[in-house]
Amino acid sequence: MPETHPQISAARAARASYRQGTVMPTAGVAPGMTQANMIALPPDYAWDFLLYAQRNPKACPVLDVIESGRTETPLAAGADISRDIPLYRVWRNGRLTEEITDASALWQQHPDLVTFLIGCSFTFETPLAEAGIDIRHISAGCNVPMYLTRRECRPAGKLRGRLVVSMRPIPADRVADAVAISGRYPSVHGAPVHIGDPAGLGITDLRHPDFGDAVEIRPGEIPVFRACGVTPQAAVMASQVPFAVSHAPGHMFITDFADSTFHI
Amino acid sequence: MPETHPQISAARAARASYRQGTVMPTAGVAPGMTQANMIALPPDYAWDFLLYAQRNPKACPVLDVIESGRTETPLAAGADISRDIPLYRVWRNGRLTEEITDASALWQQHPDLVTFLIGCSFTFETPLAEAGIDIRHISAGCNVPMYLTRRECRPAGKLRGRLVVSMRPIPADRVADAVAISGRYPSVHGAPVHIGDPAGLGITDLRHPDFGDAVEIRPGEIPVFRACGVTPQAAVMASQVPFAVSHAPGHMFITDFADSTFHI
Repeated sequence: MPETHPQISAARAARASYRQGTVMPTAGVAPGMTQANMIALPPDYAWDFLLYAQRNPKACPVLDVIESGRTETPLAAGADISRDIPLYRVWRNGRLTEEITDASALWQQHPDLVTFLIGCSFTFETPLAEAGIDIRHISAGCNVPMYLTRRECRPAGKLRGRLVVSMRPIPADRVADAVAISGRYPSVHGAPVHIGDPAGLGITDLRHPDFGDAVEIRPGEIPVFRACGVTPQAAVMASQVPFAVSHAPGHMFITDFADSTFHI
Repeated sequence: MPETHPQISAARAARASYRQGTVMPTAGVAPGMTQANMIALPPDYAWDFLLYAQRNPKACPVLDVIESGRTETPLAAGADISRDIPLYRVWRNGRLTEEITDASALWQQHPDLVTFLIGCSFTFETPLAEAGIDIRHISAGCNVPMYLTRRECRPAGKLRGRLVVSMRPIPADRVADAVAISGRYPSVHGAPVHIGDPAGLGITDLRHPDFGDAVEIRPGEIPVFRACGVTPQAAVMASQVPFAVSHAPGHMFITDFADSTFHI
């Protein structure tokens, strides 16, 4: 692995802090270390979900599957997926019922959950920033804006739902660079799915994201949309999954793997 | 899709010919159209296999999953996966028992088979050839040589096995080009897993491949090894899967999708 020791230390420190109860969006935390979306489902949804992910790989690139009853992942030594995310969402019959900072009690009540770790577009924000492209939600100190589009994902078994996208405003003369840089990270959402007019995705007002925070779009900038790992939560809602636990949007699982691991 | 009509016609003509009984390796057939490995398994192996593929993505990049009892795929309109591959292998308790040109009777006997289509490194042979790199097994008119390595794949449930690789001899001054070109196709095996001394993979004699045909390595050339979609067949053998149907190595399923679909 090409990561350096201080980067792994930063990832571990962040996870330890979240385990102790710190709640914050993770964009910009432990720069250079890959972050992941999380969704944990009952075992009778596991096959359907893995198939849903295979059929919608831009939105749901699977980085690891934690088998029934386990909470460890090779992506982060010593981590506990039920405790090391800053904020969790609990879903019952497709409805968000709670946000909690520690989900270990839920894993005790549902010891057969199967957990999926999904790539996150935060992975290529460090290389974008290194190329001189401002990542607005990081410079503004807020969460990335995310929108539920009207684009249907390809269904699988009991699961269906629409695509969720993240949005970053990019100066018109840097859009090509942003496409090229992010395109080299296909397993963490990769190149944009849409550039420009949000109406093409069925988004009516960029000032009111469905998840995360709105950000300023400055003169000369254009909105750039990428498939987002919150898409599984949209499927949980649309499919009325009886029980699920996920990360809260923008509050990711920080791994011990360098972003460069996923560079093609 | 960026493919042109004559290319799709060539793919359809090839499939129709195989359906009528033509048996031949498919390297070089319908140039520019993506070819796929195939493995069909009983439903109680489906989850394990999809997990095995997720854990070994270089060897087992899943292009499509055909659900239990179906034989159609969106990768090729009108195709029948049980008839349109030139040569099939039948596996019972992990042992190769037959090679057949039509597997439709087996699908009638085992109507619940789940079928996985896996990326094939033939996909980037056209761009390699266009860059002036000789694809030896094509110019020699034979099958690509494939070797069972001693490298263990990451197991999943009931499935384990070793990595199978394909080998192409490349002139020393073109290896970097071959790496760069194939690396842009990560969902069809992508960049090589090993370059040079075959002993590093536990291969003792390149003249005796485990699958396919040996090819000449000329002075100044170096063997270049890539993860191969025959790896699932090695898992079927090592794991003594009770029943499976696969393509015969080198005798692939030809899709209607252009190779460029998989270019990053």
